[in-house]
Amino acid sequence: MHLPFVESTHDAALFRALDDAINNKTKPLGSLGILEPLARQLGLIQKTTRPQLLDPAILVFAGDHGVVEEGVSAYPQSVTWQMVENFLRKGAAINVFARQNGMGLHIVDAGVNHEFGVRDGLLDRKVGRGTRNFAHAAAMTTTQCQMAMQHGMALVMELDGNVIGFGEMGIGNTTSAAAIMHKLADVPVADCIGAGTGLSAQGVVHKGRVIEDAVALHSGVTQPLDVLSTFGGFEIAMMAGAMLMAAQRRMVLLIDGFIVSSALLVAARLQPSILDYCVFCHCSNERGHEAMLDKLAARPLLQLGLRLGEGTESAGAGRAVWCAGCADTCQPAG
Amino acid sequence: MHLPFVESTHDAALFRALDDAINNKTKPLGSLGILEPLARQLGLIQKTTRPQLLDPAILVFAGDHGVVEEGVSAYPQSVTWQMVENFLRKGAAINVFARQNGMGLHIVDAGVNHEFGVRDGLLDRKVGRGTRNFAHAAAMTTTQCQMAMQHGMALVMELDGNVIGFGEMGIGNTTSAAAIMHKLADVPVADCIGAGTGLSAQGVVHKGRVIEDAVALHSGVTQPLDVLSTFGGFEIAMMAGAMLMAAQRRMVLLIDGFIVSSALLVAARLQPSILDYCVFCHCSNERGHEAMLDKLAARPLLQLGLRLGEGTESAGAGRAVWCAGCADTCQPAG
Repeated sequence: MHLPFVESTHDAALFRALDDAINNKTKPLGSLGILEPLARQLGLIQKTTRPQLLDPAILVFAGDHGVVEEGVSAYPQSVTWQMVENFLRKGAAINVFARQNGMGLHIVDAGVNHEFGVRDGLLDRKVGRGTRNFAHAAAMTTTQCQMAMQHGMALVMELDGNVIGFGEMGIGNTTSAAAIMHKLADVPVADCIGAGTGLSAQGVVHKGRVIEDAVALHSGVTQPLDVLSTFGGFEIAMMAGAMLMAAQRRMVLLIDGFIVSSALLVAARLQPSILDYCVFCHCSNERGHEAMLDKLAARPLLQLGLRLGEGTESAGAGRAVWCAGCADTCQPAG
Repeated sequence: MHLPFVESTHDAALFRALDDAINNKTKPLGSLGILEPLARQLGLIQKTTRPQLLDPAILVFAGDHGVVEEGVSAYPQSVTWQMVENFLRKGAAINVFARQNGMGLHIVDAGVNHEFGVRDGLLDRKVGRGTRNFAHAAAMTTTQCQMAMQHGMALVMELDGNVIGFGEMGIGNTTSAAAIMHKLADVPVADCIGAGTGLSAQGVVHKGRVIEDAVALHSGVTQPLDVLSTFGGFEIAMMAGAMLMAAQRRMVLLIDGFIVSSALLVAARLQPSILDYCVFCHCSNERGHEAMLDKLAARPLLQLGLRLGEGTESAGAGRAVWCAGCADTCQPAG
């Protein structure tokens, strides 16, 4: 598989030009807080002192996880496809958030254990009907993992805009994300796991034990793509592929919560410069996300206590990003 | 002067009905974080389980301050009118933020030391050409303070919508706001003062000394309206009046940064239930704001490091509020 190459946005001259432009606005120095480095980042991504954010879109990737057989989720697997139906009839939180922030919304079946048939508004990129249970075998074959990533890359090629927000839906996927985090960020399993959609304290302990056992079973797995295929989900692999392609195309990547960040962790191990393109939108209330953001050296824009996924954390930050992106319409000091 | 009466939004039955509606959405319990109590607050304000936010508007109140004679600001007084001109030609940060968040913007001359003449987009409610220097005499006469508050109340009566965001512009007004905070929130002067638009550390010490001396000069002043007329500004008094009327009309009040919060401190001393109507949008980087929010028992939505005023902190939170307000379009669990 050919992976996109992501170049650094580093450009000392443009950096200085952007700083000058920002500091020359009609406002006290630094008074727009973290929107100022964000505006500078947008300029560096687009190689201009006048960045423009066009046709932002949220892509929500849905997939099922074999590991739910181990009793790691508060909800049954069928909730994944039911929530996809909810997205399609515009009844979920992400529908509201995307509309309120003027962002397009695309729903992708990356590998849900359900036959939707041909449906308006649903992009069928199904790699399989859920992954295998990684408590017993690798979640994906190498071929499946590559197929998922390639679908992600191809989806990005079809987008017209230059801002992509990531969202996901998949019962069991905090378990996948926690295992990936443990393996790639070198954080103890106990610090990677949380309640997900609403596990009891006892349930969280059980989830940790399932991950510990699986990590022992697959102890030889260390490389990023192997970690992804062993512990990941179709939606996580598809996001990792989409992220790499989006960064190669110099798009702005809006990073959501815990699951989306785990996909980024994989992508960043493959192409470290991808972080130059990421706007970290929110620090999730899912335990583990704060530590993961620390590992990514990320400072999130918002702390609204969300822990829903779906892309709500990406979309929630939308207007703050637009404000930074439009900061150049704020006149220079005269 | 007749002050608006503000009734509490307390309604135990509606509170339960709103909680039921929120908890019955297609999402894990509590997963929308602080947007959930916000949605409940909006319902209580509007006395409905289906709140609707209509025609939100930001009002930016501008005024000048006699106390700038004491050298308490990094910028000269003329910057106040220059920034009003900037607002009118849509060149300031608040113009961008209001447009990005779909909010109307109204600029009010509450008492700038400049003759603008009749101007499109400028509401002339000038009480005087700047306040007196409170280092020597009360900033306003009782009559001026009442006039400012009455203008604020009348302005709110002319609004069509049910959401009002407050913003301000006035060189020297962090000094006014800090003095009000010291008097009404019982916080030592040293903990109320910050760099404002960009004072040096030495400048901040001087500003503190000016306030300490003025507080000693006006030592008999304790009642909220007396504190307002002694230390306040025309824009602060006009905002306090507007806030009281907006809460009486059961509007949603978007509270900006340090200066706007000082106006609210006065209003809340007069009508404590006004806090039921307030959405605290942002914790400013102006030192003192965090302590002031604590005194108001407020949990701000955003922490973007802004310290610009103008209403940017109100407007910045706009879409998060809209998302909460539209949470009822997220379907009940089925």
